[in-house]
Amino acid sequence: MSQEFGFTLNATDGAARSGRIDTRRGAIATPAFMPVGTAATVKAMLPDWVRATGADIILGNTYHLMLRPGAERVASLGGLHTFMNWPGPILTDSGGFQVMSLSKLRKLTEEGVSFQSHIDGSKHMLTPERAMEIQCLLGSDIQMVLDECTPYPCTASEAESSMELSLRWAKRSRDAFQVPENDGRAVFGIVQGSVFPELRQRSAAALIDLDFSGYAVGGLAVGEGQEVMLETLDYTVPLLPSDRPRYLMGVGTPADILQAVARGIDMFDCVMPTRSGRHGQAFTWQGKLNLRNAVHAEDNGPLDEASTCPAARDYSRAYLHHLFKAGEYLGPMLLSWANVHFYQELMAAARTAISEGCFEDFTRETLARLKK
Amino acid sequence: MSQEFGFTLNATDGAARSGRIDTRRGAIATPAFMPVGTAATVKAMLPDWVRATGADIILGNTYHLMLRPGAERVASLGGLHTFMNWPGPILTDSGGFQVMSLSKLRKLTEEGVSFQSHIDGSKHMLTPERAMEIQCLLGSDIQMVLDECTPYPCTASEAESSMELSLRWAKRSRDAFQVPENDGRAVFGIVQGSVFPELRQRSAAALIDLDFSGYAVGGLAVGEGQEVMLETLDYTVPLLPSDRPRYLMGVGTPADILQAVARGIDMFDCVMPTRSGRHGQAFTWQGKLNLRNAVHAEDNGPLDEASTCPAARDYSRAYLHHLFKAGEYLGPMLLSWANVHFYQELMAAARTAISEGCFEDFTRETLARLKK
Repeated sequence: MSQEFGFTLNATDGAARSGRIDTRRGAIATPAFMPVGTAATVKAMLPDWVRATGADIILGNTYHLMLRPGAERVASLGGLHTFMNWPGPILTDSGGFQVMSLSKLRKLTEEGVSFQSHIDGSKHMLTPERAMEIQCLLGSDIQMVLDECTPYPCTASEAESSMELSLRWAKRSRDAFQVPENDGRAVFGIVQGSVFPELRQRSAAALIDLDFSGYAVGGLAVGEGQEVMLETLDYTVPLLPSDRPRYLMGVGTPADILQAVARGIDMFDCVMPTRSGRHGQAFTWQGKLNLRNAVHAEDNGPLDEASTCPAARDYSRAYLHHLFKAGEYLGPMLLSWANVHFYQELMAAARTAISEGCFEDFTRETLARLKK
Repeated sequence: MSQEFGFTLNATDGAARSGRIDTRRGAIATPAFMPVGTAATVKAMLPDWVRATGADIILGNTYHLMLRPGAERVASLGGLHTFMNWPGPILTDSGGFQVMSLSKLRKLTEEGVSFQSHIDGSKHMLTPERAMEIQCLLGSDIQMVLDECTPYPCTASEAESSMELSLRWAKRSRDAFQVPENDGRAVFGIVQGSVFPELRQRSAAALIDLDFSGYAVGGLAVGEGQEVMLETLDYTVPLLPSDRPRYLMGVGTPADILQAVARGIDMFDCVMPTRSGRHGQAFTWQGKLNLRNAVHAEDNGPLDEASTCPAARDYSRAYLHHLFKAGEYLGPMLLSWANVHFYQELMAAARTAISEGCFEDFTRETLARLKK
């Protein structure tokens, strides 16, 4: 585990880029989609399946893990990788977003956020320093600074105060992130500023001064809609250094992802493939399907003729329909697997298209195909 | 699929026997444990995992499948094996037991049982002829006659009437079981008679006259307790022909199974390994564990050092504890897998012990080990 963190561009096609992130636990082909392993498990999937879909890296949620089983406990058990039997790279968020969306009685101050656990009401305090410490205890390969995800919509003045708080926290996070030489861990900054170009510009510039290993675009996918999100990326991504990975947090649909890749984003995470899978929604190369729909009850075809995933190939739609009607575990298991596999196939195809210089055509054709 | 059904004894040790059942879909090493795939899925397991545990055959429930997705629908989709992606042998029950335990407004007559579905209240009639037809539509390799599982306790007179009804139904089931030459399907009779030796004797004799491919002992594991169950086997099993497989329905714990094998039983089925697994109960070679128990929260050891199952070997008890506390799918998935694997390891060890002529010692040592 002495590999230094690094990012290498292999090809660009317009603003879209394909490349490789090197981490101490292996390489990540970009553009990359990170399946979400909230509570130390990518829900309803074996780690082996996640790997077999082509995922190079998964995401862990600091908020959930600090509450249960607890960061110190995970550390004493050998770290998150050992704990959940996932030897590859893990990126952890800072916990900030979910503290604000899930916890009770939260109070935000300059120092950090105090809150009560949504699980047992226990009291906690998350500061930039503690967020870094927790991610370190988990054994994260890519840590995120603590920030405030500015709510949408908000006034320019609210966005400015929030962005400036995030900047001060970014500085404290950066200072707290002290790792031995060649440890290989990385920390990413997060650009805020809502939908205000001047604020995004100031946020990016200040973060770049702090010299992060990568930069995330935060405060999007929070209700602003796809058009505003893409517009924000249009003026935010060019502010970021081209030699560092760029991460769009919490995104998204296949269409969101392809259009963000077109704007120069390298990394994504989203619960959509697994959450949809648990609810009977499938992503396929023929578009989205609801397996609960009676139209599938006698359809003996596989979920997705075009997929190489065992879950999409070896079971009929009629069977999947039955599993969801009967409330069987196997339904969510198979559909989460098939959906994560679809997302990874999409990213692999995007990487190929970028290398071949035909990403725009690929995106147009893929979006048309998925909308059928 | 032209293989004829057959049974070959390899070794005996006292009353215990090891052998092989040949079916049109492959061989079954006996004594055999059949995982239960109630609604066309062994709950929370991939078919590949079930096979990898060493299971040669699974059980399907006629009652559940006739109601959802329906026998005719399964047939039109290619049969149960294709539907659930399990190419190996399947034994189906007749539906009688679960009609009596699960359905609503049931009415038992000479003709059969009329009832309402517990799922949607729809009205159905299960007769011996329909039970055979449904199992045939499902594509079952070993069908069971429709019987009445006599409730326990009951008077000798109640047991006699019930047993005689079951005999008349067995005759009708046998008559309805018309398969082409060399089709390879088998049908088993079911001995009833509760805890009355004379009734068991009459039931067995009459069934043997009907010449079934195998014989089940029914009406046990219904609340009579292990001692009475074993006592009943003591006088019932010797009534059965030694050249046909003997099946103890719905049993049971590892201790039940070993002691029934000692009395000459060849086949078992039970929901225990999967149901326990879903509730955090593990069967291991060190005895039963409740993974929800806080004692496991910081135990970094695997579930079972002595197991070759990935689920028992590649994850810590602390992690399994966490999964159950967090209500994650992966907990039931891993524990169902580990438990079915344990049951199959138990059966394999029993077969070896019988072949080596040390089954009594094996049973004594195993039961002592599991009780620790």
